[in-house]
Amino acid sequence: MSDSTAPRSGLSRRRLLTGSAAVLGAAGVGAAAASAASRPDHHSPTVPFFGTHQAGVATAPQAHAQFLALDLRPGLGADEAMALLRLWTTDAARLTAGTPALADTEPELAHAPARLTVTVGFGPTFFDRVGRADRRPASVTPLPPLRIDRLEPRWSGGDLLLRVGSDDPVTLAHAVRVLGKNVRTLATLRWSQRGFRHAVGTHPSGQTMRNLMGHLDGTVNPAPGPDLDGLVWHDGTAQPWFAGGTTMVVRRIRMLLDTWDELDPDARDLTMGRRQDNGAPLTGTSEHDEPDFTRTREGIPIIPANAHIARAHARTPAERFLRQAYNYDDPPPPGRTSEAGLIFVAYQRDVVEQFLPVQRRLAEADALNTWTTPIGSAVFAIPPGVRSDDEYLGQTLFE
Amino acid sequence: MSDSTAPRSGLSRRRLLTGSAAVLGAAGVGAAAASAASRPDHHSPTVPFFGTHQAGVATAPQAHAQFLALDLRPGLGADEAMALLRLWTTDAARLTAGTPALADTEPELAHAPARLTVTVGFGPTFFDRVGRADRRPASVTPLPPLRIDRLEPRWSGGDLLLRVGSDDPVTLAHAVRVLGKNVRTLATLRWSQRGFRHAVGTHPSGQTMRNLMGHLDGTVNPAPGPDLDGLVWHDGTAQPWFAGGTTMVVRRIRMLLDTWDELDPDARDLTMGRRQDNGAPLTGTSEHDEPDFTRTREGIPIIPANAHIARAHARTPAERFLRQAYNYDDPPPPGRTSEAGLIFVAYQRDVVEQFLPVQRRLAEADALNTWTTPIGSAVFAIPPGVRSDDEYLGQTLFE
Repeated sequence: MSDSTAPRSGLSRRRLLTGSAAVLGAAGVGAAAASAASRPDHHSPTVPFFGTHQAGVATAPQAHAQFLALDLRPGLGADEAMALLRLWTTDAARLTAGTPALADTEPELAHAPARLTVTVGFGPTFFDRVGRADRRPASVTPLPPLRIDRLEPRWSGGDLLLRVGSDDPVTLAHAVRVLGKNVRTLATLRWSQRGFRHAVGTHPSGQTMRNLMGHLDGTVNPAPGPDLDGLVWHDGTAQPWFAGGTTMVVRRIRMLLDTWDELDPDARDLTMGRRQDNGAPLTGTSEHDEPDFTRTREGIPIIPANAHIARAHARTPAERFLRQAYNYDDPPPPGRTSEAGLIFVAYQRDVVEQFLPVQRRLAEADALNTWTTPIGSAVFAIPPGVRSDDEYLGQTLFE
Repeated sequence: MSDSTAPRSGLSRRRLLTGSAAVLGAAGVGAAAASAASRPDHHSPTVPFFGTHQAGVATAPQAHAQFLALDLRPGLGADEAMALLRLWTTDAARLTAGTPALADTEPELAHAPARLTVTVGFGPTFFDRVGRADRRPASVTPLPPLRIDRLEPRWSGGDLLLRVGSDDPVTLAHAVRVLGKNVRTLATLRWSQRGFRHAVGTHPSGQTMRNLMGHLDGTVNPAPGPDLDGLVWHDGTAQPWFAGGTTMVVRRIRMLLDTWDELDPDARDLTMGRRQDNGAPLTGTSEHDEPDFTRTREGIPIIPANAHIARAHARTPAERFLRQAYNYDDPPPPGRTSEAGLIFVAYQRDVVEQFLPVQRRLAEADALNTWTTPIGSAVFAIPPGVRSDDEYLGQTLFE
C-alpha cells in the first residue's frame, strides 16, 4: 500500500514555480507526510475485485455509475489490447480495495472506495480488432434495427466498455480519470454516460429505485442466487474462454418529460400497468404482487395489453435478465425544459435469447413509447473475473 | 400535505391508451392509493425554508448542488418577475419540507428532501428588467475583466439564479425540474451547472472536501456564528430592502488535469502552499494551522510568494468571505481526457470590498493559474429570506 508513492519520483520533475532551492526546501516535508496519503480508509465498504465473475454486475447497484465506451486507436491490435487490459486490471484491483493506483497523482481520492467496482467489456468490433472474431459470443452484436430507435452515434457502439460504480461521486470521478488517462495512448473515448440513483442513506436500503418519470424501476429482477446465476453467467458452452462471463446491453433512453407530465395520474398508471405511488400492478396492492394480465373489468383488461409491463413481462422463463438502470439528467438544449432519461442496462447469458424478445415486443407496441426514445445502444461481452493478480481481465480470450 | 393530489384532476386528461372504459376501471384504484404518495418521509432531514436569510448559503453544503441561471423572456417585467418569484417561493417552501409541489406530477420524488434547499438570486440585469435599477446593490455587477479569464457566454451572466442543493441526486433532479417547468412561460434557461462533493456517510462529517486536483478545498472559511454573519449578511445600509441578503459570485473554473498531473508532488504542494495529503500549510503540520508567510529556509520563503494560498490569503479582516465549492466532471471533448473543474461559489456582504481584492491578486500572480482557467462568471444578489408563507422571495425589492 505504501508503494503508491514510490513511482511518483519517476515522473518528470518540473521546476515551474520558484526555483529549485524552494523545491528542495519543501521536499523533506512532503516526503514525510506522503505515507499518510497512501493509507486506505478501513471504514469505507469495499466490493471484492477478484472472483469467478467481474464485480459490478450482480453487485447491488451503487448510487453513482459511469459507463464509458472506448475505441482502440487506429492500427492497434491484440498486443496493445492486452497491455491495456493489464493496466486496467492492475488499476482496478488497487482502486477497488482503497489503494491508490500506481503513480496515482491524487492518492487521497482513492482511500474511500465506497463500494467502488470496475467492470470491463468488449464490443462486437473488439473481437475483429484483436484478431479473435471466431471467439465473439454469438449474441454480442449490435441489436437489429428497431422502429422506436433514434440512435445517435455519440451514444452507441464501442470497442471497449468500462462500467465504474461507487456510492461516492468523488471516488468515482477519480477512478474514471485514472482508468482513462493510463490508457490514453492506446484508446480514445467514444462516449461517457454518468447516472445516478438515490444516495445511500436517503431511502430504506433494498427499496427499488425511482426513475425521473416518478415510477419504481427494476421491480422485476431475479433475486441473487442460483436463479440469477443461471440467467446471467455464461457456462462456457460454445465459447469456453467466456465461462463466467455475461453480456451487457446499454440503452440510453430519453424521457419526454414535458409531454409525460401532461398525462393525468390514471393515464400514467395505465401506460405502465403499475401505480406510480407504490409500484403495485393495477391488479394488485403492493409492488411485488404478480400482475394478472388476464383479469378484466366489464370485459376489458385491467392491465391494458399494450401497457409497459404487459409487453415487458417475460413470456417464457428464458426471457428474463438482470436490469440495472440509472437516471441521467443533463442540461437541456435550448427550447427544452429537460434532457433526462434512463441509462438502461441489461445483463444476460445471451442477448438474442433473453433480452431481444422482450425488446422486440416493446418496440412493436408499448404504450410508453410515446414518451420514451432510445437514443443510444451498445452490446458488450463482459469477460469472466480474474482469480488472482497473476491474471488480467479478458486473458482467456487471448490464450 | 394531501392537497398535492387535488390539482391533479384539473390537468388535461388524455385518453391515449385503451379507451375510456379501461381508464374508468382503474380510476378508483388510483384515487385510493394517491394519499400514500403525498406523505413526506419523516426520517429524511430537512433544512428550514423560512427565516431571516435564505437557506443554502450558510447551510452545510449538500453532496449535490445545481446552479441554474435563467433570463426573463423578452418583454416581461416586474409583474411577471413577481409571479415567478411567488411560484418559486410556494414550490420551495413545500419541496424543502418533503411535501410535493402543487400539481406535482412526480410526488414520490419529493418525500425525502435529504436537506434540500432552494436559493434564489438576482443578476445585475434583473434590476433593469424589473424597473428597480436604483435598488441594485452596488457590488452586484459583472466582475471587471481579469487577464486569467477565458469566459464563455454559456457559463456566464443571467437575470435569475437558482441554487438547489440536496444530499440525494434524485430529489435534486426532481426539485430542479419542478422549479424550471413551472416558470417556463416566464423565463428561459441560460446555463445549468451541476456539482458534487463527497457523498454523505463516505467520509467523516465536517471534513473539508477535496477537489479533483486532489487538494482539500475550503479550509479557510469563517466558522458559523457572528463572524460569518458579519461577513455574509447585508445589514440594509444603502439598500434597506436588502437587509438579510447577501451577494454571490459563481465562477466556473476549468482544471487542466493533464498538465497538473505531470507535476511531481512537491511542485504541486508548492503551487498551492499546502500539502496535498493532509492540507497543512507548508509551514505547519495540520490542515488548520495558520500559514506563516514570513518563514524562510536558507533565505527563501517556505510558502512561495506566488503560491495559491499566499495570494488568496486575506490581507485585511474585511477581505474574507464564505467559500462553497463543488466539483464538476463532464464528458471531455474529443482529444481531451477530462473536462473537470470547480464550481467556485463565494458569498459576501459586498463583492467589491471582500471578494474582488482577493480575485485580483489571484489574477495577477497565482502559481495555480497555469493549471486553472475561469470559463464562467456571474454575480447575483441573494435577497433576504421569507419569514412566513404570506411573503415571497424578493418581495422587499418590489415594495
